[in-house]
Amino acid sequence: MFTLYHMPGTIGLAVTIALEEAGLPYRIERVDFRQKAQRSPDYLRINPKGRVPALATERGILTETVAILDFIARTAPEARLLPLDDAFAAAEITAFNTYLASTVHPARAHGSRPERWVEADDVEAARAMKAFVPKGLAAAVRPIEDGFLKGPWVGGEAFSIADGYLFRIARWLEGDGVPLVSVPRIADHMRRMEERAAVKRALAHETI
Amino acid sequence: MFTLYHMPGTIGLAVTIALEEAGLPYRIERVDFRQKAQRSPDYLRINPKGRVPALATERGILTETVAILDFIARTAPEARLLPLDDAFAAAEITAFNTYLASTVHPARAHGSRPERWVEADDVEAARAMKAFVPKGLAAAVRPIEDGFLKGPWVGGEAFSIADGYLFRIARWLEGDGVPLVSVPRIADHMRRMEERAAVKRALAHETI
Repeated sequence: MFTLYHMPGTIGLAVTIALEEAGLPYRIERVDFRQKAQRSPDYLRINPKGRVPALATERGILTETVAILDFIARTAPEARLLPLDDAFAAAEITAFNTYLASTVHPARAHGSRPERWVEADDVEAARAMKAFVPKGLAAAVRPIEDGFLKGPWVGGEAFSIADGYLFRIARWLEGDGVPLVSVPRIADHMRRMEERAAVKRALAHETI
Repeated sequence: MFTLYHMPGTIGLAVTIALEEAGLPYRIERVDFRQKAQRSPDYLRINPKGRVPALATERGILTETVAILDFIARTAPEARLLPLDDAFAAAEITAFNTYLASTVHPARAHGSRPERWVEADDVEAARAMKAFVPKGLAAAVRPIEDGFLKGPWVGGEAFSIADGYLFRIARWLEGDGVPLVSVPRIADHMRRMEERAAVKRALAHETI
């Protein structure tokens, strides 16, 4: 039994989808951002980064969505969430996920977490970063729309851990100023995802 | 034989170190940033992101340092650059690398690539982001100094693909305003790295 430290509405949905697809047993420990629980001493002992998700295993805590997804796929090989017999194809999925983690997700975080990159009292710089989110995020997702998403799933015919990760970010796009009509292939992928039973179960945990 | 698209002085050094440690044959194709070659039509066909590194294999192009390092470790298992028989321990290395890619490296990139996060003509916002680099980067590397770096290597007793990645970023710290005396364990790690024959060979490719 895994424990996932999660807050609904965050990137952690990528992990609940992977856990559901893998059929692995887990419980959710909610980290209430409204109470700033992610910065509490108790939580910082679990994850010194003060972020979610974090996955508690019998071996210890694992952080970073890219790594947690990889661990889930390798822990439940029968679920075929990564092409484990093909190092190149698996690395392509890791490359996709790393691009989401290092380029796409930060592009949107500049709207909500400016204090990571400028002084907390610099309201002008924060405003400039927030105003740029639609443009920066649209540029970041463009190569996904134009080719990284092979279709019907990210890696092609085989569903993988990358699909829930893309789905999580795609659900933010409209709110972040990137119209889904501008990325029709990503929008189609979203609809395919919403039909999956595991995704429906994961979404049931997203109620705040 | 692999071809690595690389520019000296960039994060690609993490990959040349891994290739040298793995004993895999490779040649370097220089992407001359001084000529803006990373934005040339020819290079954008290789890597639509317009960045380095990119690794050309017989199966196609692989991008993203986290994914390239993982692929190298799994392609040369005899070099033991990842604990391949231990999914949790391997995922911990992936988590470390993902943290470098998604938090540490962007913290410094705000000094040199502001146009990724604000309008290109917003000199005030660019100045604010650049001024914050020493503080933001110091905060980002703090948990590495305080614990993620287990010692003597990132993962503990076993050298891994994470060590060259940390080494590459550590070499930037002084220039980015984070004194090495403030991170003595990272500085010690740098010195241990510099003694390795594979690292010396990789550094020989760094001359511009």
